[in-house]
Amino acid sequence: MVVELISVGTELLLGNIVNTNAQYLSQKCAGLGLSVYYQSCVGDNAGRLAEAIRLAMSRCDVVILGGGLGPTEDDITKETAASVLGLELVEDAHTKERIKAYMGKGKEIPENNWKQAMVPVGAKVLDNDNGTAPGLIMEKDGTRLILLPGPPNELIPMFQESVIPYLKEIASSAIFSVMVKSCGIGESKVASMLEDIIGAQTNPTIATYAKTGEVDIRVTASASTEKEAKKLVKPVVEKIKERLKEAVFTTDEDVTLEEEVVRLLDKYELTLVTAESCTGGLLGGRLVNVPGVSDVYKAGFITYSNKAKRKYLDVSKNTLKKYGAVSKETAKEMAKGGVFQTDADICVAITGLAGPQGATDEKPVGLVYIACYIDDKVQVKEYHFKGNRNKVREQAVVRALDTVRRCILDKYQETARK
Amino acid sequence: MVVELISVGTELLLGNIVNTNAQYLSQKCAGLGLSVYYQSCVGDNAGRLAEAIRLAMSRCDVVILGGGLGPTEDDITKETAASVLGLELVEDAHTKERIKAYMGKGKEIPENNWKQAMVPVGAKVLDNDNGTAPGLIMEKDGTRLILLPGPPNELIPMFQESVIPYLKEIASSAIFSVMVKSCGIGESKVASMLEDIIGAQTNPTIATYAKTGEVDIRVTASASTEKEAKKLVKPVVEKIKERLKEAVFTTDEDVTLEEEVVRLLDKYELTLVTAESCTGGLLGGRLVNVPGVSDVYKAGFITYSNKAKRKYLDVSKNTLKKYGAVSKETAKEMAKGGVFQTDADICVAITGLAGPQGATDEKPVGLVYIACYIDDKVQVKEYHFKGNRNKVREQAVVRALDTVRRCILDKYQETARK
Repeated sequence: MVVELISVGTELLLGNIVNTNAQYLSQKCAGLGLSVYYQSCVGDNAGRLAEAIRLAMSRCDVVILGGGLGPTEDDITKETAASVLGLELVEDAHTKERIKAYMGKGKEIPENNWKQAMVPVGAKVLDNDNGTAPGLIMEKDGTRLILLPGPPNELIPMFQESVIPYLKEIASSAIFSVMVKSCGIGESKVASMLEDIIGAQTNPTIATYAKTGEVDIRVTASASTEKEAKKLVKPVVEKIKERLKEAVFTTDEDVTLEEEVVRLLDKYELTLVTAESCTGGLLGGRLVNVPGVSDVYKAGFITYSNKAKRKYLDVSKNTLKKYGAVSKETAKEMAKGGVFQTDADICVAITGLAGPQGATDEKPVGLVYIACYIDDKVQVKEYHFKGNRNKVREQAVVRALDTVRRCILDKYQETARK
Repeated sequence: MVVELISVGTELLLGNIVNTNAQYLSQKCAGLGLSVYYQSCVGDNAGRLAEAIRLAMSRCDVVILGGGLGPTEDDITKETAASVLGLELVEDAHTKERIKAYMGKGKEIPENNWKQAMVPVGAKVLDNDNGTAPGLIMEKDGTRLILLPGPPNELIPMFQESVIPYLKEIASSAIFSVMVKSCGIGESKVASMLEDIIGAQTNPTIATYAKTGEVDIRVTASASTEKEAKKLVKPVVEKIKERLKEAVFTTDEDVTLEEEVVRLLDKYELTLVTAESCTGGLLGGRLVNVPGVSDVYKAGFITYSNKAKRKYLDVSKNTLKKYGAVSKETAKEMAKGGVFQTDADICVAITGLAGPQGATDEKPVGLVYIACYIDDKVQVKEYHFKGNRNKVREQAVVRALDTVRRCILDKYQETARK
């Protein structure tokens, strides 16, 4: 099945927002074994939108539209789609009730909201738990038109809860897919380590996705039942895990690297402290992505200046003078200082040169040291990250998280997460 | 002039990456007074790409393609565009020399790189300072086709340096545009405060852009010369600044809120400390976006746990017990503690409930207190931010930066930046 995504909204054409919906939907479709051949984006203009819908229906089996379902006059996606398909709009009592409930009892509801209760005759209505505009599915000559609200916090749960089951149902075969997430090995290295596995496979298919500091491997099988597809995926996932060993940190698509780190800290009742220089708090920020992290994350020190490194982490004046702030020695003392200051079990420290200024021949931009103190021992590694200031810092944060993860695995002789 | 953007790359259709190029190019085109009517995205497939180019040329004056200019066999944008326009490819000696220089002297250059030195007959070549694939501009029947390399760190400088001057040249009129950036007033409030100004204007046009915690207002005028366009823009910008007062933090498009805060700290020789709970270091991370911030940013404390608040910021046990970690009182003590711990001039502190857990009737998710200690005085404000955990935290970071900015303006009776 071939899919086209159409994003509707003048704010996209003005560059006001970045189209994260297109990425989300594309990734999900790939996971369902659907081929997205086109993404398009048009403004809130009836003529151009109708043209885009007609074109998409002429070349695809499933057309997914996002945006333009709201209560304002600008919102014309539903009206335009219905008119292209020659369908009338009628009031849907169920949706009207839901809008009433969502807007709150007793409150006056602005008149224009009822527009959202009008649905094309024969359309399947998808309830919206996070807003007032329902989603809609229509069909003509075997082509499916799926309309979703634009805000990601409405589109994503609706796609997850209503559209994925629908797409699985209409798909000729069942699809099962697992995401193996890894950290610490570059994308081309991963690809070459898995070359024979990837080369030998047609079902399941294997695709690698590089994110900053992370490589994810999607294994997707299609079969007549989901159970059979699962059976095809399982041995391939096992092979990949064997090959990449402890670089694999999860096979659960929804688990992030910081969540896995916090899970390990929790499991072994360990506490963590962070000491950051060039990343300036971004590592702490990633850890606090995880709700309830305060049980294991004792504190963080942002010590961008040398003075702060000395005062809060007890880095010696001599070390800073002799080796500089960006050095193995300083990183080690930062990590040690973090543990001694706080009585935490682990401290991870980052010091580096994110650029653009300050580089020398010996210390180029991208040079980062990450140290980890655990069990009275401190390890430190040197990295050379590529890219601009932000890119360097993001990579350092991911590597620091991975360093903590690997230190805990080492300590408890645990291999990659089951 | 009507513009269509075509992004080329299977990685976009797989959802591997988010299409930030489309946003960048759309925003820049809007600033140049060009109307982007369509964004489309196709994979590395010659047939579908040729079709997309033909369609775009039939409905637009300028077609900008990004991606698919590299050395691999997958990279077919140039070949496909040339074939649609009926142009032959010939070797460009200048580009060949540049590739040689870029790849490094004496090094062996993989054969496939020379592919990038082939250019369509008559095309204008845009030098690439950050990679090996040059950009290209072709023309047919008055429609312009602009080909740019896909990686943002190549596309953005090339657009800035070569494409903007070209577009200005071919435009029938000169465009001048200023971005007024504001913080602390919501988008709908800004819109209503400027309603009469926006309503009265057709040239310059005024458009508002809402970012997390920030509202930017673009004022764009067209005239026969840039000087005249500037003259049209100036009084409108002045009016907006008068209306929004100190909410305006810059009229320089390239200046970020954190840069403005650091500029003010620098100017008045003030030092800053941060104390973060729910944001867990994100505020520090934003400040360290600014290179050389170590002169004014003394240190940051990430005190997500109550223990850390007590130990590093000297928040009293009694305050935490009586009022809770998310309270005015705790925020104030955190800010005070930050200054006393470090001898900095200013400490900004954030404590809040980012969710999803932990909410009560009195303290809902989104409740955040931001305190600022300066000159032996501490001020604190209560905020109710909407959205999920990340959204709440992002808004808190922006408001904390803005709080520091406004405290300094207050102290020195400075109005908005000139």
